[in-house]
Amino acid sequence: MERIPILKMGKFLLVTIQVDMHDRLAMTLQDDLTNRIVRDRASGVLIDISALDVVDSFIGRMISNTAAMARVLDADTVLVGMRPAVAITLVELGLTLDGVKTALNVERGMALLTRDFDRLIE
Amino acid sequence: MERIPILKMGKFLLVTIQVDMHDRLAMTLQDDLTNRIVRDRASGVLIDISALDVVDSFIGRMISNTAAMARVLDADTVLVGMRPAVAITLVELGLTLDGVKTALNVERGMALLTRDFDRLIE
Repeated sequence: MERIPILKMGKFLLVTIQVDMHDRLAMTLQDDLTNRIVRDRASGVLIDISALDVVDSFIGRMISNTAAMARVLDADTVLVGMRPAVAITLVELGLTLDGVKTALNVERGMALLTRDFDRLIE
Repeated sequence: MERIPILKMGKFLLVTIQVDMHDRLAMTLQDDLTNRIVRDRASGVLIDISALDVVDSFIGRMISNTAAMARVLDADTVLVGMRPAVAITLVELGLTLDGVKTALNVERGMALLTRDFDRLIE
């Protein structure tokens, strides 16, 4: 497995992280995602981490960076599916995930993005 | 990683296969998916295999079995994101994926399921 798939759902892109992140995979993901945001004219990115037991500082930073890249390409990022244990670890590690919104699951994440999107074009 | 996440999207469930399947993982997925179909009253299952370079007879059979299980629980299965090379291999291996519909990507798969669902309740 050399890349993480990016799925298009309407105006949004969905990324499900299931495997251990390493440097090269994270870079490939950021590269693919930024390209897809532009190509698909996506207005939002959903990152699902429900498969992750642990979010360490490397993944935390990777998510923040990805959100920052999406931001400058005019797309919001919502992190979904965080496990309770991961939330505890994040706070204990002092990771704040700047600029990243969170939602309980994909459906709520999409609702959040849709509301933001609707407010934007009103 | 001990299980593959199942995401709920409206009436449908989405499974993205990114890792090499082995016996235990496949059984866990089938167990989780059948439970989720019942719990979420899902009417369709989308299995995304865009991350897979190779679909061997084990994965092919696993997908067919999963579709058959979904079928008896009154949910349709659509396989999405198949790479051209995988399609070639499937035919060369003689794998027919009985009872599994296919679509180019998640969006078209959802459209297919929605159309089927609409026709059902007409």
